[in-house]
This record gives sequence, structure tokens and C-alpha cells, in this order.
Amino acid sequence: ELRDALAASFGNGALAGLDVVVSAGPTFEDIDPVRFIGNRSSGKMGFAVAQAAAEAGARVTLVAGPVGLATPLGVARRIDVRSTAQMHVAILEACTQAQIYIGAAAVGDYRPSEVAERKLKKQAGADLVLQLTENPDILGSLSMQATHPFLVGFAAETHDVARYAQDKLQRKGLDMIAANRVGDGLGFETVDNALDVYWADGMLALARAGKTELARQLVACVAERYRAVRG
Amino acid sequence: ELRDALAASFGNGALAGLDVVVSAGPTFEDIDPVRFIGNRSSGKMGFAVAQAAAEAGARVTLVAGPVGLATPLGVARRIDVRSTAQMHVAILEACTQAQIYIGAAAVGDYRPSEVAERKLKKQAGADLVLQLTENPDILGSLSMQATHPFLVGFAAETHDVARYAQDKLQRKGLDMIAANRVGDGLGFETVDNALDVYWADGMLALARAGKTELARQLVACVAERYRAVRG
Repeated sequence: ELRDALAASFGNGALAGLDVVVSAGPTFEDIDPVRFIGNRSSGKMGFAVAQAAAEAGARVTLVAGPVGLATPLGVARRIDVRSTAQMHVAILEACTQAQIYIGAAAVGDYRPSEVAERKLKKQAGADLVLQLTENPDILGSLSMQATHPFLVGFAAETHDVARYAQDKLQRKGLDMIAANRVGDGLGFETVDNALDVYWADGMLALARAGKTELARQLVACVAERYRAVRG
Repeated sequence: ELRDALAASFGNGALAGLDVVVSAGPTFEDIDPVRFIGNRSSGKMGFAVAQAAAEAGARVTLVAGPVGLATPLGVARRIDVRSTAQMHVAILEACTQAQIYIGAAAVGDYRPSEVAERKLKKQAGADLVLQLTENPDILGSLSMQATHPFLVGFAAETHDVARYAQDKLQRKGLDMIAANRVGDGLGFETVDNALDVYWADGMLALARAGKTELARQLVACVAERYRAVRG
């Protein structure tokens, strides 16, 4: 009875029978054994999405960057990674048998071109130049595959959010994109969030809410679009 | 009675009547509103030192980098900071009325020369160069002051630990330095630790132990040296 009630309130098993891969958290790109380049993603939104997808009946694989968060109840598999390159490999593998990929991780666009084996020593009085190399584009490499899951991206921007999100949707060949504005108490390292979800010929604005509630609304929207496009 | 027992086991109020400043955790140097350069310090060793100093009777000010740790019982004041520059200001202010400074924070040696106000956009196919500027040397600037607290530094190295620690002790004009080797299950992001403590004419090796126990032994050693040198 409880399970039925949960299913009813969380979307009637809208993703029942589907394999869904969710990425979450930041990636850390090591400079040396001590230092790294990171980003402010807490992983909370992605973990909430993984939980909501499991509640909706999906078999969820959660690929998580370095975060200290417990695996949500009902998530079938969790793969912990640190760098974007590791996340890339894990997601490609997991997506070979998934119908939907929701990329909520804040993937590092760049990594140090060389990783020092020993801790770099400070050179007194001298500035330092860090040479960075572009990371693999996870969403881009998925969408270029002949058969690939229904692709849902995220855009976390500080400015021109709508324009950038729609551009990323087209440029990367995504099915949907969820855009959240960072700052003003929203987005990274916060509890509340607000999302604008775009697809080729529509959009849905999800008002400011807790990440758990917002994730459920997003998952319901993804399920609806997935059924419309892929049956 | 419990209080007496605690005092007896934790060093008989060896720091009673003293103001002690402890720094802990990493510093994060922002590249833009989303990305930053960080380091692997969990803050656990510094928080354990702050707790041990409070147990030994000191009035403790804890200056903490970005960590998700609760303030240890008995710590009188906590100042949360993010960057090395912020930590520098907070420590200099707190040290104006302290007799002992224990610098357990893993301070970032470098910061991006410019912090972008907007999230940097990826330039397809292009590498990126990040220009870094040296951060203020917190221990160095303290030791250059005419009157300054008894200075205890930390050295977290991957190689040549003893040689580097003794060099840092002299070069920065410290009273003591605690060296821990990073790696092999010790140091950053771990529970256990092991410390070699050096001063001008002596050293003490503290065997592998939990950070709480190790911090108590370190604080006892600092108190003993402080009383010997500054009465």
C-alpha cells in the first residue's frame, strides 16, 4: 500500500522498465598529488534526480564525482569517479544498455596538461603558468553515437541562461536540457533550485523548490517527453 | 570529577590561560564563479588539534577553510574563510592576542592572477593557459613581525619529508614544525596519520594513530616546548 501510494505521488512508475543513467557531482582534475581543479557542484541535484528516477520505477545507475553523499534508496548501482576522463568511461559503459541518460554532473571542461607525480614546490617570487587541455565532451560523444539513449543535459550558467541552454541543446544534439541559474541563493552549494527545461519545440519552467521536489518534477517531464519521442 | 579526569588525561591543562589560534582545512582559489583550485586537506587534523588545545585549557580560535566539519566542543571562536587571502587576514587579526599559532591548514601557494566574473566558456579545440600568482605566506608574514606568537607549522609532503620539514622550519623562522607524509594511507583524506615534530635542537616521532590521539600528543609537545622557550 505504501509502495502504491509512493508510486502514485511520484509519477505512477513513469519510468518502469527503463534503464536510466544519472551523473552527479563535480569532477576533480589533479594538478599534483595534493592540488586539483574542482568546481562548486555539491552533487545534491544529481542525487535527487537519481532518487526521483528510482522512485519512478527506473533501474538507475548513478555515476558520482567526489562527493560525500549517501546513495539514495532504490538506486541499483553507483560508480564513484574523480576525474572527467574516469566519468567519461563509466558513463559510456553504463549507457550501452540505458534508454535515458541524465547528465547532472558539473564536468570539468579542462584538466592540467600534465599531472605532476610529486607535489609542486613554490618558486619564490615567481608566477606560475598552468597549461590546461580540453576534456572529453561526454554528452557530445554520446550524441554522436549511431544509437544512444535519450539525452538530458544540464546547463549551470551565471548569465544569459536561456540563450545558452537552447544553444547547447542544439549544438550537442540533446533531447532536453535543464537550465539553472547559479547565484542569488540558487544552484550550486544550495538547497533550493529552480529549473527551466527546454526541448526542441517546447519548454517548462519549474519554480523555485527544494531539490528533491524539483527532481521529481523534472523526472516526470523527462518521462513524458521520452514516451512522446521514443514510445 | 569528570573534568579533572579529562584534564589529567589530556595534559593537565597544559595550555591553561593561553590564547591559541589554529588554522585548518584547505583553501579554495576561485578561477570563476564555478571553478576553483583546491587541495585535498579534509581539515580533520586541524580540527583535532583545535579540540586538543581546548581540552588542554587554551582559549582556541579556529580559522577554517571550506570544510563540512562541526566545531569541536570547547573551541571558543570559529572563523570560516574560503581563500588564502581571507585566511591570511583572519589569522593575522586573531594572532594579535595569541601566544601560540598552529598552522594546520593546507594553504594554497598560488591563486589565479585574475578571477573571472562570469563562468569561462570553453573554446572548442583550444588549450587554455591559467596564469597563477603567488599567495601571501601566512607563516612567513607572522614570523617577520617584531612580536609574534610561538609558531608551529605543518609540512605535508610526498617526498623527502624530513629534509623539507627542517628546511621549512629554518627558512620561515618557525618554533616547531609537524611533518606528515602524504600517501600510503596516511595524511590527506584519511583517518590515521603519523607525525614527526621538529624544533631547533630536537625532534619527536609520533607513531601512526588516529588524528584525535595524535593531536593530543602534538599539543602536549607544543605546550612543553612553549613553556621551555617562552616560560
